[in-house]
Amino acid sequence: MTEPEREPTAGGLSRRRLFGTAGAGAALLGAGVAAGVVGDRALHDHGAATGSAVPAVERRYPFHDGHQAGIATPVQDRLHFAAFDVTTDDRPALIDLLRRWTAAAARLTQGLGAGELGPTSGPYDAPPDDTGEAIGLPPAGLTLTFGFGPSLFRDDQGRDRFGLAGRQPAALRRLPHFPADKLDPARSDGDLCVQACADDPQVAVHAIRNLARIAFGTASVRWSELGFGRTSSTSTGQQTPRNLFGFKDGTANLKAEEPGLLDDHVWVPAGADPRAEWLAGGTYLVARRISMAVEPWDRTSLREQEALIGRTKAAGAPLSGGSEFSQPDFRLAGRGGEPLIAADAHVRLAHPDANDGVRMLRRGFNFVDGTTGLGRLDAGLFFIAFVRDPRTHYIPMQTRLSATDGLMEYLQHTGSGLWAVPPGIAEGSFVGEALFS
Amino acid sequence: MTEPEREPTAGGLSRRRLFGTAGAGAALLGAGVAAGVVGDRALHDHGAATGSAVPAVERRYPFHDGHQAGIATPVQDRLHFAAFDVTTDDRPALIDLLRRWTAAAARLTQGLGAGELGPTSGPYDAPPDDTGEAIGLPPAGLTLTFGFGPSLFRDDQGRDRFGLAGRQPAALRRLPHFPADKLDPARSDGDLCVQACADDPQVAVHAIRNLARIAFGTASVRWSELGFGRTSSTSTGQQTPRNLFGFKDGTANLKAEEPGLLDDHVWVPAGADPRAEWLAGGTYLVARRISMAVEPWDRTSLREQEALIGRTKAAGAPLSGGSEFSQPDFRLAGRGGEPLIAADAHVRLAHPDANDGVRMLRRGFNFVDGTTGLGRLDAGLFFIAFVRDPRTHYIPMQTRLSATDGLMEYLQHTGSGLWAVPPGIAEGSFVGEALFS
Repeated sequence: MTEPEREPTAGGLSRRRLFGTAGAGAALLGAGVAAGVVGDRALHDHGAATGSAVPAVERRYPFHDGHQAGIATPVQDRLHFAAFDVTTDDRPALIDLLRRWTAAAARLTQGLGAGELGPTSGPYDAPPDDTGEAIGLPPAGLTLTFGFGPSLFRDDQGRDRFGLAGRQPAALRRLPHFPADKLDPARSDGDLCVQACADDPQVAVHAIRNLARIAFGTASVRWSELGFGRTSSTSTGQQTPRNLFGFKDGTANLKAEEPGLLDDHVWVPAGADPRAEWLAGGTYLVARRISMAVEPWDRTSLREQEALIGRTKAAGAPLSGGSEFSQPDFRLAGRGGEPLIAADAHVRLAHPDANDGVRMLRRGFNFVDGTTGLGRLDAGLFFIAFVRDPRTHYIPMQTRLSATDGLMEYLQHTGSGLWAVPPGIAEGSFVGEALFS
Repeated sequence: MTEPEREPTAGGLSRRRLFGTAGAGAALLGAGVAAGVVGDRALHDHGAATGSAVPAVERRYPFHDGHQAGIATPVQDRLHFAAFDVTTDDRPALIDLLRRWTAAAARLTQGLGAGELGPTSGPYDAPPDDTGEAIGLPPAGLTLTFGFGPSLFRDDQGRDRFGLAGRQPAALRRLPHFPADKLDPARSDGDLCVQACADDPQVAVHAIRNLARIAFGTASVRWSELGFGRTSSTSTGQQTPRNLFGFKDGTANLKAEEPGLLDDHVWVPAGADPRAEWLAGGTYLVARRISMAVEPWDRTSLREQEALIGRTKAAGAPLSGGSEFSQPDFRLAGRGGEPLIAADAHVRLAHPDANDGVRMLRRGFNFVDGTTGLGRLDAGLFFIAFVRDPRTHYIPMQTRLSATDGLMEYLQHTGSGLWAVPPGIAEGSFVGEALFS
């Protein structure tokens, strides 16, 4: 299978081990060695890794787990999100794709090539089973998270292409139209979705590109979006990132260290939906491409900006006082008797107190997609939230926000999607297997 | 100027010093302290910085120098490139914009806010003079490089709006049409360009966004492109990056450590063009958005891929043998008498031997701009080259490549631009001042 004179690469070797700075004398490793180890220093140690903390680009997250990775995993800095349309009506072909995607994802997330042969081995007269642009790159904390859209169960013509309609979760419907939505169908929906998060954009892009390659003939990319977060791997990892309005975003986000709250708000419990028991332990992924009018925003006063958000720009503290993590006091009034946090401030309307106590696990990324036809930056927030039920945990809040949030003057939702995210994948299984069994 | 109760930020403080992990007890620094210091550990020291090498995100490059930064500067990992159209015919307004851009760039590249007050100080009822999304982020090696397009001297209607036509360099003409060009006017040309390179995308985006804000009423963004390179700050910094064909790209690139070659091939010498003496010490920036048909490429054999490039995929060695940095032997024949490096191989046609010995300083970035209407990744290489004269150093080679390079089957040039890049900026001056004096 290998041609020694052509610098063979065996499938079981990590990209880095073969080509990286510590690549001398690479030894064959059993495939099992690489799996399930988070930040294994022995495999990935190299000159630049110092101190006790594993640098972000060297991190690896286990692929096989009770929940899919990329949800409660610490948020990486880069995103490549892709929605796919299944181009066949053949149920076995769909299952086969999910099997092949699962196998590739298990490898890619551990820093290996997409296929067993790797980008430069295998038959010289066949296409490589990995595209190669990630050769030499570390795992970069890559996670791959798969979701099933409403149209996989019943397409826009109402057809049940794959015999799945009877198992469609009741909550898995296309999101309703919200006031001020201006959705682009070419940036919305999709039968399948894959969220690739990593601390190196090339690693995230490489993963999506190889999954698209593997899907050739069965599914094709409907749309995709690249996003970036805050600073790179030398950050403390705890600082709240800033959105393109210059404000801290996601201060009140659920944290992975709050398993009880994740059970309450993120994971679908067993028995939640008798038709969709296959989704127990999974969640729903809400994606919204939120375009931000940054140029008009940049011409508003600091006072106006802070009033619309309800927090200070510098520290992110509620306008009612304290510091970033202080609870906002919505009743506290200032001079003149007006509340310090205005009635239409974003922090008030998005707060659990205004939303029946619901909370979301958010994983948003900033995006800049060049310019609009009007010479403005085509920029904004690619909002991702994981919730146990969009009917209680997203739709009511977004209905309220889109009608009353003062910030909406500067926002336009231009893309949208909802997917059911199956639970974690056991070794030997494939993503969503319980749906098909 | 500051409002102490509102977490004041003085203009002379770095973003990091104020808000970063080492931010306690920030002291006022003279503005001069921050300037001209590359990787000043004292200013930027924090917990994650270890070892003797300065992490990429902590690097700062001097703004005032004999040449503009961002040309011979070690290539950073992220790009935000923007082309601007000047929306006024008023020469003093153009000069004023260049002054204000210069002042902002001198600050931004040192990790400071775009304006003297910063994102959260200044009059509370005025727009902040910095947009704030880079608060807390390190300088990230940001460089800002400015260029003047042919249309600044004479617009498409032939008008000399700013009285500059008499000083237009003879070499500064819109690039000719090359075979197989499929240029999108909305991704081509522009009166001005700004290349922002940094090791953090948010820092690069922040810089372009603030320069666009400053230009409001005088110039607007015509188009912009985001790019990414290879791995992030823990890399050795010496590894040749890979393009989206999975091959190493730029092996034969000019290096900053070759000043003699830079003089020969990059910097415009004094006396080169009597009408454009203002450009001496500057260079020309050629930008080409090269779309790559990655899906068809992924279905070709490793043999075909290597034959088209003329190098091995794994190590990047010429097919005539050796290692990555070995000189290709174009005469060496294999079995059957055919040359090991084919007649239409990219490495042969792009080699200086086939191009009168000319060399370029390249600064290319991979891009992925979502998907095309055909469900393919809208991906490729945003090619940037700096040359002393495009008539000798780019046009002949591209004419030959576009007609004969076997790789062209998988490439389409979809954007194009040429700009004259003035020399470095002395303290108290502004970019291109000699053009206006």
